[in-house]
Amino acid sequence: DMVYGLDNIGSGTEKADTPSIAEQDSLLKRESGINSNSPMRLRMEALIKQHQKLIVQELEKLDGSKFRIDKWERPNGGGGISCVLQDGKVFEKAGVNTSIVYGNLPRQAIAKMRVNHKALDPDVDSLEFFAAGLSLVLHPHNPMAPTVHLNYRYFETANADGTSNAWWYGGGCDLTPCYLFDEDAIHFHKTIKEACDKHDKAYYPRFKNWCDKYFSNKHRGETRGVGGIFFDDLDETEKDQEQLFSFISDGLKAFLPSYMPIIEKRKDMPYGEKEKQWQQLRRGRYVEFNLVHDRGTSFGLNTPGSRVESILMSLPLTARWQYMHEPEKGSREERLLNVLKAPREWL
Amino acid sequence: DMVYGLDNIGSGTEKADTPSIAEQDSLLKRESGINSNSPMRLRMEALIKQHQKLIVQELEKLDGSKFRIDKWERPNGGGGISCVLQDGKVFEKAGVNTSIVYGNLPRQAIAKMRVNHKALDPDVDSLEFFAAGLSLVLHPHNPMAPTVHLNYRYFETANADGTSNAWWYGGGCDLTPCYLFDEDAIHFHKTIKEACDKHDKAYYPRFKNWCDKYFSNKHRGETRGVGGIFFDDLDETEKDQEQLFSFISDGLKAFLPSYMPIIEKRKDMPYGEKEKQWQQLRRGRYVEFNLVHDRGTSFGLNTPGSRVESILMSLPLTARWQYMHEPEKGSREERLLNVLKAPREWL
Repeated sequence: DMVYGLDNIGSGTEKADTPSIAEQDSLLKRESGINSNSPMRLRMEALIKQHQKLIVQELEKLDGSKFRIDKWERPNGGGGISCVLQDGKVFEKAGVNTSIVYGNLPRQAIAKMRVNHKALDPDVDSLEFFAAGLSLVLHPHNPMAPTVHLNYRYFETANADGTSNAWWYGGGCDLTPCYLFDEDAIHFHKTIKEACDKHDKAYYPRFKNWCDKYFSNKHRGETRGVGGIFFDDLDETEKDQEQLFSFISDGLKAFLPSYMPIIEKRKDMPYGEKEKQWQQLRRGRYVEFNLVHDRGTSFGLNTPGSRVESILMSLPLTARWQYMHEPEKGSREERLLNVLKAPREWL
Repeated sequence: DMVYGLDNIGSGTEKADTPSIAEQDSLLKRESGINSNSPMRLRMEALIKQHQKLIVQELEKLDGSKFRIDKWERPNGGGGISCVLQDGKVFEKAGVNTSIVYGNLPRQAIAKMRVNHKALDPDVDSLEFFAAGLSLVLHPHNPMAPTVHLNYRYFETANADGTSNAWWYGGGCDLTPCYLFDEDAIHFHKTIKEACDKHDKAYYPRFKNWCDKYFSNKHRGETRGVGGIFFDDLDETEKDQEQLFSFISDGLKAFLPSYMPIIEKRKDMPYGEKEKQWQQLRRGRYVEFNLVHDRGTSFGLNTPGSRVESILMSLPLTARWQYMHEPEKGSREERLLNVLKAPREWL
């Protein structure tokens, strides 16, 4: 995911005169803890860790199995917590990861980011940055139960004097069923729309379209799933930082209410060998999107030294590719494909 | 694969005054058939189709099942033959494809290719091209039997007057076992080396290294398999066209002798659930290479209108991703990984 890709890009600054943001934050945490007056970096870190804990708790209750928890630290500040449940009772594979990165952006990466963030100084050789994100992918066993993905992230760059320069938020949440229950898609979109509407009535339609466009297996002319919301680069030209943080918080809060009623309803539905095989083919499409098109994944995998196991926790436990597979005319499988080929308005 | 990626890039020329190479070739084939005086385009087409037929025949004999054969034509000349055997007795999935493409390279693609082919004119808006290739991937059921991949291709561009401009060959063949039998790797490399040595003693060492470098899952620090040979852009600066065609022919001829003795020996070996699971994990790595790193595949998937099912016939029927899987110390699984992390000289 986006944030993992940035792992290990650079490793601390060489400047001795001004404290880096990593040093500032480490000092602040030790001296005064984190509160609403702390820098956004620390508040975002606290927010995603709190939601990670809550989500893992609820999923453990549902599944009846425990997550494996791996914590790692980065030598120059930051680190991550990967929570993975594999071969559980409800989930084939479930990953809920947080990652905090302090690093340095090389000149080339700055040039790319300037396209969306004019505040970035084009005339420096490197720029200290901070990234924090929560990433989640749940693949249930039951083919009637949809896969879900969520990612919320915050990004900040620092001036040479250690003050903050550009900042932005990105994220979203989307649903990928193998068998389509309209009521599930409607419930999912409705819950997310309510969280969006509290902040801006234009958000849901805008981010819903962005999601359909982004999560698309362009080579097949299919979206990955039935969508949700997706956005990136939300900065001061959009709303002030406090308002956007509040939006992100509500997006995170909406996750459990958007997904838990669906998984509760679907996890024990009867199914046969045929449904399991179709699920495996759809898992193959999930792999195709993540490995071919997802910018965060390919950026991460092409970044030397990144934590590959955390990036690829998003892949299903098993997948299948069958040459020239075509669903039967009028089948439920074909109905799903038709919706993926022409994304629908759910509300 | 490389050649499929070029499918549907352009669609014929608009020039009315000079016949395109597609038109020339179509006329030549009708009037005089294909012989050793025909343009290289037609000789390459004949060569790969002949080997496709032979290889499919031998594999059908071995497996006891028939390939499904799909032929398709391109509106402006060229076409392809996809031969796929799925869920056979020996092979989980086997694909043997040929593809012939007449099309137009856009300016951007010309600029990229000029890096290796100075003969290309940088000052034209588009360039007619021809590409022909044979691609093959065989995934056996038995975890003791290795996957094998082969690709040989020829590429040519035309001047505006319909004469040929730049041309080059690419290709190779490589072996991907789940369980390593040294004798198999040695036999495979030895057979290929003999084909290379007939043409140039420097070829095998040079193309063996190229193969280890190219078929690498860089994000994991592992090669895809135990290698073979790989090369690209062999043109008149290397050897004359006739000599290179003869080398390609011998490469193709070496395929059955390099692989058949291995599959014969391994296809009925006993194995258990544990070996099958390890195979599935290794299949996952195969998918990672093909979708993340293989230039031909990603180019193909990002080219609108390409035949996705032919490109992705290279993927295994089934694959698996397990978080933080590590083979036991001293196991055969660990031994394979050690070789993939530090490619070996087999001869």
